[in-house]
Amino acid sequence: MTATQALGWEFLGTTLLLLLGNGVCAVNTLRTSGGRNTGWVLIAIGWGMAVFVGASVADVSGGHLNPAVTLMLALNGSTPWDLVPYYIIGQMLGGIFGAVLCYLTFKQLFDANSLDDNGENTDANSVTGGIFFTGPVHPKNGWNAFTEFVATFVLLAFIAWGPAGGELGPLTYFAVAFVVIAIGMSLGTPTGYAINPARDLGPRIAYAFLLPIKGKADANWGYAWVPVVAPMLAALVVGLMTTVM
Amino acid sequence: MTATQALGWEFLGTTLLLLLGNGVCAVNTLRTSGGRNTGWVLIAIGWGMAVFVGASVADVSGGHLNPAVTLMLALNGSTPWDLVPYYIIGQMLGGIFGAVLCYLTFKQLFDANSLDDNGENTDANSVTGGIFFTGPVHPKNGWNAFTEFVATFVLLAFIAWGPAGGELGPLTYFAVAFVVIAIGMSLGTPTGYAINPARDLGPRIAYAFLLPIKGKADANWGYAWVPVVAPMLAALVVGLMTTVM
Amino acid sequence: MTATQALGWEFLGTTLLLLLGNGVCAVNTLRTSGGRNTGWVLIAIGWGMAVFVGASVADVSGGHLNPAVTLMLALNGSTPWDLVPYYIIGQMLGGIFGAVLCYLTFKQLFDANSLDDNGENTDANSVTGGIFFTGPVHPKNGWNAFTEFVATFVLLAFIAWGPAGGELGPLTYFAVAFVVIAIGMSLGTPTGYAINPARDLGPRIAYAFLLPIKGKADANWGYAWVPVVAPMLAALVVGLMTTVM
Amino acid sequence: MTATQALGWEFLGTTLLLLLGNGVCAVNTLRTSGGRNTGWVLIAIGWGMAVFVGASVADVSGGHLNPAVTLMLALNGSTPWDLVPYYIIGQMLGGIFGAVLCYLTFKQLFDANSLDDNGENTDANSVTGGIFFTGPVHPKNGWNAFTEFVATFVLLAFIAWGPAGGELGPLTYFAVAFVVIAIGMSLGTPTGYAINPARDLGPRIAYAFLLPIKGKADANWGYAWVPVVAPMLAALVVGLMTTVM
Repeated sequence: MTATQALGWEFLGTTLLLLLGNGVCAVNTLRTSGGRNTGWVLIAIGWGMAVFVGASVADVSGGHLNPAVTLMLALNGSTPWDLVPYYIIGQMLGGIFGAVLCYLTFKQLFDANSLDDNGENTDANSVTGGIFFTGPVHPKNGWNAFTEFVATFVLLAFIAWGPAGGELGPLTYFAVAFVVIAIGMSLGTPTGYAINPARDLGPRIAYAFLLPIKGKADANWGYAWVPVVAPMLAALVVGLMTTVM
Repeated sequence: MTATQALGWEFLGTTLLLLLGNGVCAVNTLRTSGGRNTGWVLIAIGWGMAVFVGASVADVSGGHLNPAVTLMLALNGSTPWDLVPYYIIGQMLGGIFGAVLCYLTFKQLFDANSLDDNGENTDANSVTGGIFFTGPVHPKNGWNAFTEFVATFVLLAFIAWGPAGGELGPLTYFAVAFVVIAIGMSLGTPTGYAINPARDLGPRIAYAFLLPIKGKADANWGYAWVPVVAPMLAALVVGLMTTVM
Repeated sequence: MTATQALGWEFLGTTLLLLLGNGVCAVNTLRTSGGRNTGWVLIAIGWGMAVFVGASVADVSGGHLNPAVTLMLALNGSTPWDLVPYYIIGQMLGGIFGAVLCYLTFKQLFDANSLDDNGENTDANSVTGGIFFTGPVHPKNGWNAFTEFVATFVLLAFIAWGPAGGELGPLTYFAVAFVVIAIGMSLGTPTGYAINPARDLGPRIAYAFLLPIKGKADANWGYAWVPVVAPMLAALVVGLMTTVM
Repeated sequence: MTATQALGWEFLGTTLLLLLGNGVCAVNTLRTSGGRNTGWVLIAIGWGMAVFVGASVADVSGGHLNPAVTLMLALNGSTPWDLVPYYIIGQMLGGIFGAVLCYLTFKQLFDANSLDDNGENTDANSVTGGIFFTGPVHPKNGWNAFTEFVATFVLLAFIAWGPAGGELGPLTYFAVAFVVIAIGMSLGTPTGYAINPARDLGPRIAYAFLLPIKGKADANWGYAWVPVVAPMLAALVVGLMTTVM
């Protein structure tokens, strides 16, 4: 694997992940979406399917799509350290670009979202941030970081110790989809289960600086460190555990 | 593969796709259906399962069921160009026949749909077009074509670069079902995600010219080019990309 | 395969199919069930999973669980004709016993179902028949038979022409689960998609003659021929088609 | 397999099972959870996915996660009897620890659950027991034990006679997830489908003695024997049946 391949395929895969993942939140949120308020089954299955598609298309680079996955696999020796920066750059750029692509795909619905049913301006549009990045229900970020740590640990434990890789072959992507559905359904509501720095920070950057959404709220930067630091800590812990187990 | 086989199996597979796909919309829409208003989880999973069944039964011809898939696979050299017309004719005829079969399967429910709960005539039946063909939430067809382009790109990117074909073997049809569920859950509401000219134009023709549904509305021909042109453009782009990637 | 094995495994598998299939209807229907009125997604996925379990456990006999499947596979030469009676007897007895087992598993909920929330007797219990056997929304049984014919055709077409059997291996049972989910989501509401004489007639017999449910309604025998005759006709058609395709 | 491996991997796997399984109940129950009252589709699929993750990660020890599974596999000769105590100790400790971990992951939501929407204290929190352990809808424990026996029988019949183990390979975990979804959707509401002593008794112990949840109700010890005794009886029956079938 060349550095260009790592960066390119991770960019494409993470773009698809965020296009689809932010998309399912748009389907569930925007005022004129036919799937508005469908609820948690849609969110959890939708994100699982998004990981399935993104990781499958990035088959060449192993479909990490997540700096925490890359760090854990570097620590356990599966991914060469000199490729790690290219993986992470591809993932971050894909996270930003996927969010932009999602916005464009729902362009007319975002425009209509700043209006009420009578076409008058309304401030209901301030919720659009939740389409792109995660946020916690309660304000104590120590506990929120713990939640993100545990949820990411589940993902990485599966990749590290489950019958993945060679044994699963192409079943790997189905398995990871199931794991992501599991995490979403079971651990998702306290913090929105980022479990992936690129999935959260990329779209947050896009929302804050790139997307011309009318009446958008702020990007909640005070929370932004949680879904970056906690998943990377989980990667550190699982990665080190794999060297002794 | 002979031309007859290509046409025949694609006809059978696309017939099943539209019978089931239009069927899930009928289940979700018709007044006396026990599944009325179940919502977007039903729609998205139902269409995914419909593709699973149709593509599996058309295993002999590769289960394209979609002129955009056929065009992309012709461009990347997987499908011989001289078979392409037979694939597409089979798909279009299957799209029309599947819609007719769906109508007949729900015949009594379509009849009851033009009545209200007291058996009086009502014009609520004008929504039956949405059972058969797609339509956008908002009127700007440039943006709608962009949405259909992106959604079809996701499907074709998976087929082109995911671990499909030989590596997946019979898992291919499960994988494609997951991808279609992903697209439906994540990108489906702005335009109804046709992502397939045969899926949209076939039933639109059936609705406009063949089905004797009481009080039916017009077939919205002004929109009909979008779900034909945008998916074929995506096929052109992905097909050309596969020749250089 | 001996006749005893065919009868025994088909009995066990069909018992599980009806225990679980009737069970999901009980979960969705009974007054004190925590899953009451969950709706069509539960019904369709639940029946798919029921087929998955029943057919997997009856792996030794091929997991038909359905006289229409057995007839079709006899016509195309996969199942020896002299075993067919044993298959069908096992399926019918399993259909009856599975319904009885479902009743016993939900015994207290059936008892509570004949009471209202204040513990007074009520006649709301007359709907319990729908837990066990299918019924149509509209009364024209010619059309209802057509609907059952089409839905069974989809199931049998998948088994006959999809990548089943040897090629799918243990994936077969996953695939059949998906097909049954597809049929339920897409074609299920007009008639309740029996698509299997044993699934419908067995529990109907159990309901009419064996189950001591308080205030139960009649077993709607006037409809009972439809989910027997139409699936067997579909088996005849698909079975004959496989001899020429 | 050493005794330490058996205990360690079963502990890790059962921890994940209860973290995720109790988690989906928390998502569906707690007042400030965005998935509150999603319903039975979420519960049933969520528990299936929880088993998928836990059993996959405990691949080394076979992913039993359930004393009833271990007993049945010991009776049919698959698991050595001298390892059985280590399996069960790992499972019980994992059941307790997983519940504690779930509590910590949802810490802020548990705290907020003892308040109403205005921040006033309320006694609505007494329902939190149902997040951790199962309970029946109706009080006759003979019938409840029968229900748990039947539901566990389905799980064990699949493991004993389905195309599991060697033939399924890594598909095993997908299959078991489907079976657990089947049992939940079809037989789950009368008793909450423990079908596993470790899944019920472990979290019940954690709830009663370890978790500092405000205003918690009692742990309903009068029912605690049912989800222990009935699954073990089913294991005895299926285990003995496998020695003669």
